[in-house]
Amino acid sequence: MFQTFRATTTPDQGPPRLAALRSAMADEGIDAFLVPRADAHQGEYVAARDERLAWLTGFTGSAGIAALTRDAAGIFVDGRYRLQVRVQVAGDFTPVDWPATRPEDWLATRLPRGAVLGFDAWLHTAAEVERMERKLAPAGVVLRPCENLIDRIWTDQPSPPAGHAEAYPVELAGRTSTEKRAELGRVLREAGQMAAVLTLPDSISWLLNLRGRDLPQMPVLQAFAILHADGIVDLFADPAKLEHVDPGHEVRVLRPDRLAPALAALRGPVRVDKATAPLAVSEILTAAGIEVAWGEDPCILPKARKTPAEIAGTREAHLRDGAAMVEFLCWLDTAAPGGKLTEIEVVKKLETFRRATNALRGISFDTICGAGEHGAIVHYRVTEETDRPVRPGELLLIDSGGQYLDGTTDITRTVAVGAPTAEMRDCFTRVLKGMIAISRARWPRGLAGRDLDPLARAALWRAGLDYDHGTGHGVGVFLGVHEGPQRISRISEIALEPGMILSNEPGYYREGAFGIRIENLVVVEEAPKIGDGRDQLAFETLTYVPIDLRLVEPAILSPGERGWLNAYHAEVARRIGPRVGSAARDWLMAATRAI
Amino acid sequence: MFQTFRATTTPDQGPPRLAALRSAMADEGIDAFLVPRADAHQGEYVAARDERLAWLTGFTGSAGIAALTRDAAGIFVDGRYRLQVRVQVAGDFTPVDWPATRPEDWLATRLPRGAVLGFDAWLHTAAEVERMERKLAPAGVVLRPCENLIDRIWTDQPSPPAGHAEAYPVELAGRTSTEKRAELGRVLREAGQMAAVLTLPDSISWLLNLRGRDLPQMPVLQAFAILHADGIVDLFADPAKLEHVDPGHEVRVLRPDRLAPALAALRGPVRVDKATAPLAVSEILTAAGIEVAWGEDPCILPKARKTPAEIAGTREAHLRDGAAMVEFLCWLDTAAPGGKLTEIEVVKKLETFRRATNALRGISFDTICGAGEHGAIVHYRVTEETDRPVRPGELLLIDSGGQYLDGTTDITRTVAVGAPTAEMRDCFTRVLKGMIAISRARWPRGLAGRDLDPLARAALWRAGLDYDHGTGHGVGVFLGVHEGPQRISRISEIALEPGMILSNEPGYYREGAFGIRIENLVVVEEAPKIGDGRDQLAFETLTYVPIDLRLVEPAILSPGERGWLNAYHAEVARRIGPRVGSAARDWLMAATRAI
Repeated sequence: MFQTFRATTTPDQGPPRLAALRSAMADEGIDAFLVPRADAHQGEYVAARDERLAWLTGFTGSAGIAALTRDAAGIFVDGRYRLQVRVQVAGDFTPVDWPATRPEDWLATRLPRGAVLGFDAWLHTAAEVERMERKLAPAGVVLRPCENLIDRIWTDQPSPPAGHAEAYPVELAGRTSTEKRAELGRVLREAGQMAAVLTLPDSISWLLNLRGRDLPQMPVLQAFAILHADGIVDLFADPAKLEHVDPGHEVRVLRPDRLAPALAALRGPVRVDKATAPLAVSEILTAAGIEVAWGEDPCILPKARKTPAEIAGTREAHLRDGAAMVEFLCWLDTAAPGGKLTEIEVVKKLETFRRATNALRGISFDTICGAGEHGAIVHYRVTEETDRPVRPGELLLIDSGGQYLDGTTDITRTVAVGAPTAEMRDCFTRVLKGMIAISRARWPRGLAGRDLDPLARAALWRAGLDYDHGTGHGVGVFLGVHEGPQRISRISEIALEPGMILSNEPGYYREGAFGIRIENLVVVEEAPKIGDGRDQLAFETLTYVPIDLRLVEPAILSPGERGWLNAYHAEVARRIGPRVGSAARDWLMAATRAI
Repeated sequence: MFQTFRATTTPDQGPPRLAALRSAMADEGIDAFLVPRADAHQGEYVAARDERLAWLTGFTGSAGIAALTRDAAGIFVDGRYRLQVRVQVAGDFTPVDWPATRPEDWLATRLPRGAVLGFDAWLHTAAEVERMERKLAPAGVVLRPCENLIDRIWTDQPSPPAGHAEAYPVELAGRTSTEKRAELGRVLREAGQMAAVLTLPDSISWLLNLRGRDLPQMPVLQAFAILHADGIVDLFADPAKLEHVDPGHEVRVLRPDRLAPALAALRGPVRVDKATAPLAVSEILTAAGIEVAWGEDPCILPKARKTPAEIAGTREAHLRDGAAMVEFLCWLDTAAPGGKLTEIEVVKKLETFRRATNALRGISFDTICGAGEHGAIVHYRVTEETDRPVRPGELLLIDSGGQYLDGTTDITRTVAVGAPTAEMRDCFTRVLKGMIAISRARWPRGLAGRDLDPLARAALWRAGLDYDHGTGHGVGVFLGVHEGPQRISRISEIALEPGMILSNEPGYYREGAFGIRIENLVVVEEAPKIGDGRDQLAFETLTYVPIDLRLVEPAILSPGERGWLNAYHAEVARRIGPRVGSAARDWLMAATRAI
């Protein structure tokens, strides 16, 4: 549930594995090789057999890539993992700041003209290889797809995941797979395309109304699929994984090793998503003389527009999860002031409350629980090494979520332990103003997340403050807790549409001192009409959990903001009160008092 | 000062002029001809000799184009002019909604394959002709540059403007022309370009520290210029216009008819701005075998980043203009409640107060003065035909500005005459909240006007309201009251930079009832640092004129908004009080009281 920094490989295992890899590189006749953290499905989580980067280097972060030459080994990680990578990898590996320096930049200065860079074409997207080639071709370096050399030397590599898939009830999905496949088939026909290759497990799981047990924290079936323009799907997955479901006669289940021949037998044009599909897919098509039509995975946008049934399920999941959160916050308020409670104890206790719902399928991501200065580390995950008690006078930031059959939750609350300082209250209230600005925003149809993002920051900006992450990410329904394409972010140009679920999570981080984040999930809806006003979109809030009033400074709230907060808390009390025990209910009534 | 709808051509003059044009088209062997309102400099204002569209059709709007075939005549105008065009043009011309239908769309359905469309290559940009060609080439219509046929038949066409240019004092400009030319020469050299062709009068006037008297309401020299990479400029303008200035030996003054040969004698690559330069410029270069490098007019961005001297001058111009506005508003409060005052009387009186400063060079645009339902017509200009009294219980919207040697002003105030309704107060306060949000915004460097635009609208959006114009436009210094590239608008991706002057003018328009707009000018500056907070940008407000407190509903202002309004009014009293007469000072003190 919470990771430690020595998941797979101890530092002494690194050198012999690196030596074995270099020997395999020599056998293969290549001068350099890439070992990405990504698997063939380019998701946030990978199965044990795909933890090649961790096996080779010891690094267990959720993103990264190693580039190996005969005499150098770079490991490329982003800002979240600068510290962790130094703790986890042995001296043979040189950490490199990504994306400031990309593997191709680093290799271009280290490889002689004529050198050959080998890579596994199933683990890199077409867009990624194209980008590397733009840099390396002028340096005279040749990119050559080859067998995965880690798989060759990893003698006790785990088997592929074999969890049984389950049908996702149509009452929760709101549409049958037949309807979805018919609609997307029509989309392909209108684009003059004969088929689309699907490589994203959440796209496939959504399209077929299936869920799986192949990955931690994300209930998807790991598979590939071909969607034909007539709505028929070829699903490439171990048939044993599907023995408890009947996907219907329009879904043909084929063994994974049939994918390559099936691709080569298609008629073109075939849609392939350059940003997510392995290069191998387009290479197989091209080699067979089949026209590749680059285009977005056709499931992505329809999956993001949730059905009324999905929204109803998600509402219920949030009330259930909110009741667990309220029990937890009530417990925390009693247990924390003693100053003995450690971050790990808090994380374990929170999961206990979620499990007690008897509906939890798993947490939706590793809980972030940061006391004091740990709260200022945006992606902090407590480990045995970093664990520390929560002391009076500190803030505790807890970002967590659950996977339930009817929905996926993601919530952050920041709680005062003991008496907060005036600065903490001022910063918290500014973060809250931004979070309220998004919650009660209404806007003309057509705006993107980029257009709303400044509303979440204006109150912080006015105090010279800001936060270095987006304001919100898309969220799935019993699928990924991070899903696209919708976001509330400076870089998101995707129009927000009714049914899209997003997080609303502004924050403020004072390095070495404290971190603040307040996060609710919201869903885009048609705004209730006001008089003869315009047609607009708005958010419905899904999360109902109190916001710590000890951290709110009412004097800097506008009348409208105060009104929103009081109305929100009244709804929290009304909806969650009946779902918790009497001690928690008493706590809840006080925590949701009007200010 | 205020236009009427019969400026140039009476309806009975239209038919013979159209017949003469069609005869000239036949002589020229063309099937269609374009008569744009634009001149060769693509600005907002044109000289009398360039009022070809008004001469032919009677239409006097600031944008439009006529397309004539042998048997049809379309006049294309945007939303601002739908009504006006019907009043002004005779039945021979068919008004067409632009840009929904563009001339090329309309012509493509009316001209047979093989038809020839003639146009004056000096009056259309390269980008515009390219766009027309994309539509007309597939329809088999040939575009052929030809002599301007209006000029051929317009026997009493006025002469080109011959106003004397004046030097713009370096104390106000803040930089010498030599410095500006040297910097831009370096920009061209770094881009590997030998020269740039300048066709925008405000670019040329800025670069050479000159001002002119060639156009109404915009003090520019109408000219063309070539900026060489060594910083030397060839200026193509009637030397008589320059006899009172000495542009220095690095500026060679040449007669306008020398432009074409000078272009043909250049060495390439030569920078030409596709969006603003006449097609003729690039055609001459190309015909002479000179490479055209498409690129933005190099003056545009440096001109937008005002120098400290320009900002200081603009501050002073706004205090002077603010004092005139306060005298005017004081007068209005006495004169208006009687219910007899008409819009034209208000416009005339306001100009009288500005003239009394003894520093006014001219108004910066035709004053918008709309009482009651006229206020809801965003581009309303009162005419003898539409003039009406301002009645008690109505709002009066006045948008006006002045040209002073040290700066250009643009201000809108909306004033209650008699008692406003609760709805007026609610809407006004929401507009004010947006205007305050922009005024006190701080933001990280790199954001564009698009990123700030939502802050101006959020309070209106929450009530289901909005406005259909941008929030702000760039403003020059004793130059155009509208200048690019900076804007606060959904479509502006240009990063805001210190020194850029913009308007801040949210509004709300209730059709048939009332209009509200509140406009100050602001200048981008480095934000004063707050503690150890981040480096940010912010706006300094330039306009100091009271905002009508009778229209403010304090209950929907936040503490911060109310604090801003009170601090602003205290500054208005402090800065403007000493500059007005005693009656106006008494009025001012009451108008700026704290709420």
